[in-house]
Formats: sequence, structure tokens, C-alpha cells
Amino acid sequence: MSFGETPITVIGNLTADPELKFTPSGAALAKFTIAATPRTYDKESGKWTDGTATFFRCAAWRQLAEHAAESLAKGSRVVANGRIRQHDWTTDQGEKRSMLVLEVDEIGASIRFTTVTINAKRPAQSAPAVGDDAWNTAASGAKQESDEPPF
Amino acid sequence: MSFGETPITVIGNLTADPELKFTPSGAALAKFTIAATPRTYDKESGKWTDGTATFFRCAAWRQLAEHAAESLAKGSRVVANGRIRQHDWTTDQGEKRSMLVLEVDEIGASIRFTTVTINAKRPAQSAPAVGDDAWNTAASGAKQESDEPPF
Amino acid sequence: MSFGETPITVIGNLTADPELKFTPSGAALAKFTIAATPRTYDKESGKWTDGTATFFRCAAWRQLAEHAAESLAKGSRVVANGRIRQHDWTTDQGEKRSMLVLEVDEIGASIRFTTVTINAKRPAQSAPAVGDDAWNTAASGAKQESDEPPF
Amino acid sequence: MSFGETPITVIGNLTADPELKFTPSGAALAKFTIAATPRTYDKESGKWTDGTATFFRCAAWRQLAEHAAESLAKGSRVVANGRIRQHDWTTDQGEKRSMLVLEVDEIGASIRFTTVTINAKRPAQSAPAVGDDAWNTAASGAKQESDEPPF
Repeated sequence: MSFGETPITVIGNLTADPELKFTPSGAALAKFTIAATPRTYDKESGKWTDGTATFFRCAAWRQLAEHAAESLAKGSRVVANGRIRQHDWTTDQGEKRSMLVLEVDEIGASIRFTTVTINAKRPAQSAPAVGDDAWNTAASGAKQESDEPPF
Repeated sequence: MSFGETPITVIGNLTADPELKFTPSGAALAKFTIAATPRTYDKESGKWTDGTATFFRCAAWRQLAEHAAESLAKGSRVVANGRIRQHDWTTDQGEKRSMLVLEVDEIGASIRFTTVTINAKRPAQSAPAVGDDAWNTAASGAKQESDEPPF
Repeated sequence: MSFGETPITVIGNLTADPELKFTPSGAALAKFTIAATPRTYDKESGKWTDGTATFFRCAAWRQLAEHAAESLAKGSRVVANGRIRQHDWTTDQGEKRSMLVLEVDEIGASIRFTTVTINAKRPAQSAPAVGDDAWNTAASGAKQESDEPPF
Repeated sequence: MSFGETPITVIGNLTADPELKFTPSGAALAKFTIAATPRTYDKESGKWTDGTATFFRCAAWRQLAEHAAESLAKGSRVVANGRIRQHDWTTDQGEKRSMLVLEVDEIGASIRFTTVTINAKRPAQSAPAVGDDAWNTAASGAKQESDEPPF
């Protein structure tokens, strides 16, 4: 557990369906990207127009990851709260890279533009057996893709 | 439109169903309270226990208010983003009071402990006719209750 | 130590000099209020005007409290980061009251409108002896003033 | 002016002195990096240790930039408030890159570990003449360095 991390709330839309993986130890990990798009007022036209989007790469873990995979899809608007963390990695060419990632602690499906139905709670799903080859291979990353951050 | 307001994200559970009113001009207003409960680690027992809750009074307007009334209920866990504003009022005894209220800009139904189903968007509902007596009376507040903040 | 508290950053000006007290055990406590004033654009005049201020009661502890008392004064503009907590108390008339207070974790003197000189660090000052009557009496509050929250 | 941007408060220490430039039109721009370092509790030793730092690239403009250059230096601890924005650029090799940058709206010199002296306000300094070659050359960037983001 850490203190002194940098909290942030990101509001925007998922650029694609969440990608669900499981670590070799069986922990669920959902990765997705939120596009946060500010609106800018155009004096000429007197209208609001979409500004340039900022893309936040997000990681959610365990039950939250499973719920994200079940509840969210490409285009879903969310209110995501968590901490900004830096991830460093080295490309196949030996180049050092870093990026800022949102470690999601809590995420909600926005009701700004639509309603949602909150489903009844279920017992937490058990993690898949560690021997589940397909997922584990995907999750462990086997060979790290070039330029792909290992978070 | 104002700048320099104080943004905040509140995560917690609704203490009651949202209370939906309409202003005399027909604008929807949803009022509700979020209880944010920190967890505290007890060294003696080695367990996490709920700490003392902080209660945030919230106001959401227009389409967001209608969606809140349709989507959220007592106990719903939410991620609410908005701005903290001070509301001042005078009691029947002539005593000045003030409170901090969360003006909600965006709110999401949390998927931390459960899944949600995002419903298809519908056209924005039309506001009720201004002549709608029952709602207007309720919304205009008729007689302000003592010690009740007029937000 | 608690998790799940509600973080906030408040930017504004101190309404008075910080009030420094010491608890009976010798811990420093600085109390002060930050007025956060949004600016509103007036279409008529085409100018920015100050909106209605929101007042945040703040509490800072230990070394941070002593530094606040030494560095800040009425009117100082600050960037204060911490957690919103509810304080409950009962008036002399037996009326229950509550307020939201900013428990300050870190505070900076703003350089938006002026420069600052950062002084060299000194060793942390030792807490006053518990027998220090004058301070302890002040800090323990002796008789709680009516309508005065005990934070 | 934009709405719907992503606000954030970053607390940490400057990794170097702020770098002050002026755009061809004479606007001051200060660039610096804040290292935010969480503390992690080590069960083995029972001590707090510094965790892995996250580095936030920051940009401050106009009077705030000039004040930053005058007030802050390598190691200065700050509380910086602003908005996270994405900056995109193309390397000399034609590779697309992006990074998240903190556009600073307000920044304070932290008094957590030391005191500060708030200097008297001065009239805003006039911007340098546009013909100021040295600065303009530096600011316009002349030849963009490879892999160097143009913010």
C-alpha cells in the first residue's frame, strides 16, 4: 500500500471494449483507454465544438476488472477514479520509454446521456485455474511486443 | 459560467432515493446525499472496519437529474464529479446558516461491487409544462421548512 | 490510517491569520479558513467579476501547522490539498450540527500573483512541554463556545 | 476556453530549475518536471520507504511562468494544480509519439517541510520586445530536437 500517490478523475468514453486478461497467478486485469474530450466554444459560430481528445490508458484489477469487462464496451461513457502512475519499459531496439497510466480504483457508468440499470450483486467469481493456458499465455505476455508497454 | 470553482469527486452510497423536483420554469432538479465511508485498518484485530461517514448533499440538474431519478436508488454506489459550492440560508428564527453542497456535473453508477447494464440512449425528455401545479408547488417550496437549506 | 477518504484541492485566500493551538499532548494545530472565489463572466459588461465565495474551514497538524502559522497570513493565496471530513457537534442548546472540514495534508503559497522565497529547512521544532499551561488551556478549549465546532 | 478538461493536483519536487522561454509573440512559458514520489510501508523493516517516482512534465504560462522561474528551483517542493493534456508530435524518424502534460493553472511552494516568505506583489512585468533574438530563437525551437515533444 502506498501513500502520496497522485489521484485523478477521468471522464470520457472508452475507445474500445475492455481487454480482459489474467495474470499467471489468476488475477483479472482489464485494460482500456478513455478518451476525454473537452468542448470548446467557437466565437465565430457561437457553437460548442469538440476539442482535441486526451487519451488515458487505464488498468483495473480483480473484481473491478471483471465487472468492467461485463458492463462496459466501446463508446461507454465513464467516470473513472484512481491514481496516475508512470510505467517504464524498453523497446526491442533498447530504447527507454515511459507513459502515464491510470490505475483505476473505482469506475462508474455515466448517467449523463443515458440511464443505467444496476444489477444485483453476485458472489465474487472465482479466479480461473492457473493452468488455463490460453489466458495465461496472453497475460504473461510471452514475448513482449515492440513499443508495447508491459502494464 | 464560472471559472475557479472547486472540483471534487465523491465516491459513496446514496442514503435515500433521489428526490426529483421541477423548478417553476420546468427544469428538473434531483437532490440526494452521498455517504462516503473510509475504511480504517484496526491493528488489534488485523481487519478493515468502516470509519465515520462523511455526508455530501448533492444537486443534479436537467437531464442528469432525470437519469439519476431513474437509475439510482437508496444504497446505490456512485462516482460523482462536480464542484463544491456554499449555500447560505436563514432559519425561521433568523439564524444564518451555510452548508457545502456538491453541484454534480457527471455521475456514474459504480461497478466496483456489481455490474451495470447501460441502457440505449433516448431522445431527451421534454420538460413538463410550466402549468403542472403539483410539481411546481413542490419545487417552489411554498413555505420553506425551518433549518432546511434552499438548494 | 484511513482509505477511501475524499481528496480535494482548494485554491483561494485566507480570511484571517492562521490560529495556532496546541493539544494537551503538545501537537500543533493550525485552523484557518480559505475563501475560494470563482470568477464569472458578465455578458453585459464584457468583464470578469468575482462570484460568490465558498468558505472552507481547514485544519493542519504538527509541523505543517507551525509552518502555516509562520508563512501564511490574512489574504495569503494558497493551494491546499487534503481530505474533506465531516465534523459533528452539539450546541449548548442541544442542537446537533455538522460541517465539512478540510484536513490539510499539504499546502503551498501560490505564486500566481506574486513570488515567494523558499526558506532553508530547519530541524523540526520540538513540541512544547505538556506542562505549558497557557497553551494547553487554549487548546483544550476549556468551555466549548456555543455553536463553535470542536475541530 | 475549454470545458470538460481533466483537472489534477500534483505534489512533488522539481527535478531541475524551471526552464523559461518566450514565444515569438512574447508570452512567457516555463517548463519543468515534478517528481511525485509515493511512500510505501515495508512490513519487513516496519519503515516507510520511497516508492517509484512518477514524473509529470509541466507547462506554465505568462506571469505564472515568470514567477515560477523566480521562485522555484531544482528540488523545490510544490503543489501544482491544472489540467492534463495530451501532446502529440512526430520524431525525426517519422514516428508518432504522444505524452501527457500538466498545463499548470496555479502552483504553490509547499510549506510541508519548510517555511516560505511571500513577497509583496509587483506590477506585472512587461513582456520582452518581440525582437529579442536570443529568447525567440530558443522559444521558437528553431530545429526541433528528435524525440523532444514540442510543448
